[in-house]
Amino acid sequence: MSSSDIFIGETIGTAILILLGGGVCAAVTLKASKARNAGWLAITFGWGFAVLTAVYTSAPLSGAHLNPAVTLALALKKNGIAWSDVPIYWGGQLLGAMIGASLVWIAYYGQFHAHLTDKDVVGTPGKKSVEAREKGAGPVLGIFSTGPEIRVAWQNIATEVIGTIVLVLAVLTQGLNDSGKGLGVLGALITSLVVVSIGLSLGGPTGYAINPARDLGPRIVHALLPLPNKGGSDWSYAWIPVAGPLIGGAIAAGLYNVAFA
Amino acid sequence: MSSSDIFIGETIGTAILILLGGGVCAAVTLKASKARNAGWLAITFGWGFAVLTAVYTSAPLSGAHLNPAVTLALALKKNGIAWSDVPIYWGGQLLGAMIGASLVWIAYYGQFHAHLTDKDVVGTPGKKSVEAREKGAGPVLGIFSTGPEIRVAWQNIATEVIGTIVLVLAVLTQGLNDSGKGLGVLGALITSLVVVSIGLSLGGPTGYAINPARDLGPRIVHALLPLPNKGGSDWSYAWIPVAGPLIGGAIAAGLYNVAFA
Amino acid sequence: MSSSDIFIGETIGTAILILLGGGVCAAVTLKASKARNAGWLAITFGWGFAVLTAVYTSAPLSGAHLNPAVTLALALKKNGIAWSDVPIYWGGQLLGAMIGASLVWIAYYGQFHAHLTDKDVVGTPGKKSVEAREKGAGPVLGIFSTGPEIRVAWQNIATEVIGTIVLVLAVLTQGLNDSGKGLGVLGALITSLVVVSIGLSLGGPTGYAINPARDLGPRIVHALLPLPNKGGSDWSYAWIPVAGPLIGGAIAAGLYNVAFA
Amino acid sequence: MSSSDIFIGETIGTAILILLGGGVCAAVTLKASKARNAGWLAITFGWGFAVLTAVYTSAPLSGAHLNPAVTLALALKKNGIAWSDVPIYWGGQLLGAMIGASLVWIAYYGQFHAHLTDKDVVGTPGKKSVEAREKGAGPVLGIFSTGPEIRVAWQNIATEVIGTIVLVLAVLTQGLNDSGKGLGVLGALITSLVVVSIGLSLGGPTGYAINPARDLGPRIVHALLPLPNKGGSDWSYAWIPVAGPLIGGAIAAGLYNVAFA
Repeated sequence: MSSSDIFIGETIGTAILILLGGGVCAAVTLKASKARNAGWLAITFGWGFAVLTAVYTSAPLSGAHLNPAVTLALALKKNGIAWSDVPIYWGGQLLGAMIGASLVWIAYYGQFHAHLTDKDVVGTPGKKSVEAREKGAGPVLGIFSTGPEIRVAWQNIATEVIGTIVLVLAVLTQGLNDSGKGLGVLGALITSLVVVSIGLSLGGPTGYAINPARDLGPRIVHALLPLPNKGGSDWSYAWIPVAGPLIGGAIAAGLYNVAFA
Repeated sequence: MSSSDIFIGETIGTAILILLGGGVCAAVTLKASKARNAGWLAITFGWGFAVLTAVYTSAPLSGAHLNPAVTLALALKKNGIAWSDVPIYWGGQLLGAMIGASLVWIAYYGQFHAHLTDKDVVGTPGKKSVEAREKGAGPVLGIFSTGPEIRVAWQNIATEVIGTIVLVLAVLTQGLNDSGKGLGVLGALITSLVVVSIGLSLGGPTGYAINPARDLGPRIVHALLPLPNKGGSDWSYAWIPVAGPLIGGAIAAGLYNVAFA
Repeated sequence: MSSSDIFIGETIGTAILILLGGGVCAAVTLKASKARNAGWLAITFGWGFAVLTAVYTSAPLSGAHLNPAVTLALALKKNGIAWSDVPIYWGGQLLGAMIGASLVWIAYYGQFHAHLTDKDVVGTPGKKSVEAREKGAGPVLGIFSTGPEIRVAWQNIATEVIGTIVLVLAVLTQGLNDSGKGLGVLGALITSLVVVSIGLSLGGPTGYAINPARDLGPRIVHALLPLPNKGGSDWSYAWIPVAGPLIGGAIAAGLYNVAFA
Repeated sequence: MSSSDIFIGETIGTAILILLGGGVCAAVTLKASKARNAGWLAITFGWGFAVLTAVYTSAPLSGAHLNPAVTLALALKKNGIAWSDVPIYWGGQLLGAMIGASLVWIAYYGQFHAHLTDKDVVGTPGKKSVEAREKGAGPVLGIFSTGPEIRVAWQNIATEVIGTIVLVLAVLTQGLNDSGKGLGVLGALITSLVVVSIGLSLGGPTGYAINPARDLGPRIVHALLPLPNKGGSDWSYAWIPVAGPLIGGAIAAGLYNVAFA
C-alpha cells in the first residue's frame, strides 16, 4: 500500500467511524432526535456497526486499522508493519476522527442547539434554566469523548487496558483464522461484533474508548466548536483513553508473539 | 441482465423493501399491533433486515439497487452501468415502492382503521376525540414517508446527504472487498448492517430516507389510499428526501472515483 | 437423502425450532422467568435464531425445510423435490413441533405452574384470583400458538399469506445466490434474519405463524397437556395459520417459476 | 495440536469468555455502570458475542471448546478427540474461567465497591441500609454464577440438560456443515448466535449455565475475593450447573452418533 492510500484510507475510515459512533451518541442523547433514550443496546450496536461500515469501506485502501492501538500492535507483532508507516496511520486516524466529529455536529446541528440552549425552559433564564443547561452540557461532551462513572485513575486505565487487549487479540488472530481463505470481509463483521461485545461487557465503567484517536480527536473538536453552553472538555481525563489503549495494544501484541505466533 | 429482468427485479425487491420497512413502522406505531412501542432498535433493525431480505431476493434478477441514489452512483462510477438502464431501474424502484406501501396497508388494514378512527375514545366525538385523531395522523404518515424533527431545509438536506454518502460508499466498495471471491451474499448482509448503522447513528434528525423511492413512492400511496382522518401528505417536505439522497449518491461516486478507483 | 434421514432430520430440526421459539415466548411471558417482559425484540430475535439453530443442526440430514409451506413450495418449484417426499417432510415437521412444544413445558415446568395457579394472589381464591387466572391463560396459549389482535379472517389470512411469500421467496432464491459456492451455512444465517425481519415488520397483526406446523403442532400439545387453568385452545382460529402459509408458499413458488426460474 | 497449545488456548479463550460474559452481568447489575438496567437482550447478546470473541481468538490454538460439556461430547463422538486430552482441556477451561472472573472484578472494581457498600444510603447504617446490602448481594453472585428462579432440582437439571443438548448438537453438526469449505470462522459466528438463542429461549428458569466451567470457576472466585458484604456463594446449587451440562453433552453426543454420524 502506498503512503497516500494509507493516509487517505485511514482518514476516510476513521471519519466514518466517528461520524457513526458519535452519531449514535448524539441520536440517543439530544433533544428533538427520533432516537432519544433508545438505550445502551442502541449505543453498543451503533458503535459496533460503525466499526463494520468504516472497516468495510476503508479496508481496500489502508487495511483499516482506524485505531492507533491497533497500528501499534501491528508494528510490535512479529513480521508486522513497518514502523515508518506508523505516523502515517496515526495522522490519518486523528484527522479522520476530527472530521467525523465535525460531521456529527453538522448532521445534528439543530438538535445540538435545541439541547444546549434549553428551549424547553420557558420564561426568564433563571436558576432553573442555568441548572438545566449545565445538566445538558455533560452528556453533550459524551457525544464526543468518553468519561468515567467513578473517577479513579488506576481502575479507569485498567478497564481501558483490558478492553483493548480483547479487541487487539481478536484483530491479530484474524490473520490466523482467515489465512488464504479470502474471508477478510467476514473478519470485518466479526471484529465489529467483538466491539459490540466489549461495549456491552466492559463499557460500564469508562465508556470504552479502546482507541486513542476515537477519544482525542473528538475532544479537540469539542473544544473548538462554537457550541453554546457546552461546558469544559475535561482535559484532565484525556490522557487515560490515550494511554490505556496504547498499553493494552502493546500487551496484546506481546501475548500474541509469545502464545500465537 | 435483460431490461425486463432489471425492471422485474427492482420492482419485486423494492416492494419487499418497503413492505418490510413500512411494516415495521406500522408494527411499532399502530394500535392493536403486538409490536406497538417496540422502540427505535426495532425500527432500525427492521429496516436493515428489510434491506437484507429485499437485496437477497432480487439480486439474482437485477443486482438489487433498490434505490435511485445507488443507481445514480453506479452510473457515475468509472466503468459503471449504462445510463440507458437508469430509467429502467428508477421505474421499477418507484413502482415497487408503491406496491410495497400498498401491501403494508393490506397487512395492517384493521390496525390502520382502529388507529385512525380512534376507537378507544368512547362517547360523542367531541374535541378530545378530534385532537386524538389529529395526533394519530402524524405518526401514520410516518409509516409511509420520513419527516424532520426540526424543519430546517439546509440541515435536513445535509443529514440526508451525509447518510447517503455512507451508504453508497459501502455499496461501491463492496466490489473491491468481494472481487472474485463469490461473497456477494455476505455483501448483502453487510450492506444491511450498514443500513442499521445509518439508522441508529444518523436517523435522529430526519428519519433517514437515504433513498428517494423509499420516500416518494409511499408518499404517493399515502395520498391515494382511502384512509380515514389521514391528514395531509406533507408535500412541502417531499423534495428533500429525493434531492438529498441523489446529491449524496453523486458525491459518493465522485469520492470513489477519486480515492478508490 | 433417504426417507429416514428426511424424517429424522425434520423431526429433530422442527423440535429444536419450536423448543427455542416457544421457549422465548415462555421466557418473556411467564412469572418467575428471568426474561419476563423482555419485549418484542427478544421475541423476534429469539424466533429468528431458533430458525438458525434448527436449520444449521438439521440441514445435513434433511435439508432443513422445517415448514410445510416451504416443502410445498419446493415441490411446486420447477425441478423441485419429489411429491412422494412431501408427506415424509410434513410428518416429521408435525411430530417435531409437538416434541418441541412438550420440551418447552418441561424446561419451564415450574414457571407454567406459578403463572397459571396465580401464586401471587394471596388469600381465598375469590373473584380477583379467578380474573387473574383467566388473564394468564390467554398469554399461555400464545406460548404455543399464534392468535390475532383483530379477529377478521380475510385480513388474518392476508397477513399470513404476505409474510409467507416473503419467507419462501428468500428460501427459493437462496439457490440462485449460493449456487456452487458452498455458502449454504451463510444461507441459514440469512434465512434466520429474514425471519427476524418478517417478525418485526409483519408480526403485529397475527403473530406471524408463517408455518402450519409451528402453529398446529403446539396447539395440539396445548390441548393435551395437563396445565391448570389453561383455558381453551382457540380451535376456531386454527385453520388460518395452516391455510394462510400454504397459500403463501404456493403463490411464492408460482412467482418464482415465472420470474426467477 | 500440542498439549501446551491446548492448555494455553483454552485458558486464554475461557478467560475471555468469562471476562466478557461476567462483564455484561456486572455492567447491567452494578451501580455506577453506564449499562445499568440495560435488560435481558443486553445480557443474552453480551454472552453470545463473548462466545464469538473467545472462540475466534482461541480457535487457532486449541480449537476453542471452552466448555467441559463440549469437550466431553467431542470425546464421546465417533472418531472424536483422544480421552487423554480431556483433562488438559478441562484444566485450561477451569483456570481460564477463574482468571476471567478475576478480571471482571478488576474492570468493575469501583462499581462492586459502590454497589456492595451501599454508598447511596445516607446516614447511620441502620436497618434500611442492611436490607439494601443484602438485596445487593444476591445480584452480585449472579455476576459470577447462575441460580434458579424456582429451586426445584429436577427441573433445574432438566433445563440445563435441554439447553446443553441444543448447544452441543450445533457444535457437532458444524463439522457436517463446513466440511472442506474453510468456513470455520462462520461457524464461530453461528455458534455464538446459537448461544444467544439458548439464552433468549431457555435462560428464563436457571440463567443457562450450559457450561460447567462457566459456573464453577467464577463461583470459586466469588468465594475467594475480598468483596464486602458479598453474601454466600450458594454451594448447595453448584452441582446442578456442573452435572446438567455434562449430562446434556453426553446425550447430544449419543444422539449425534446415532442419527448424524
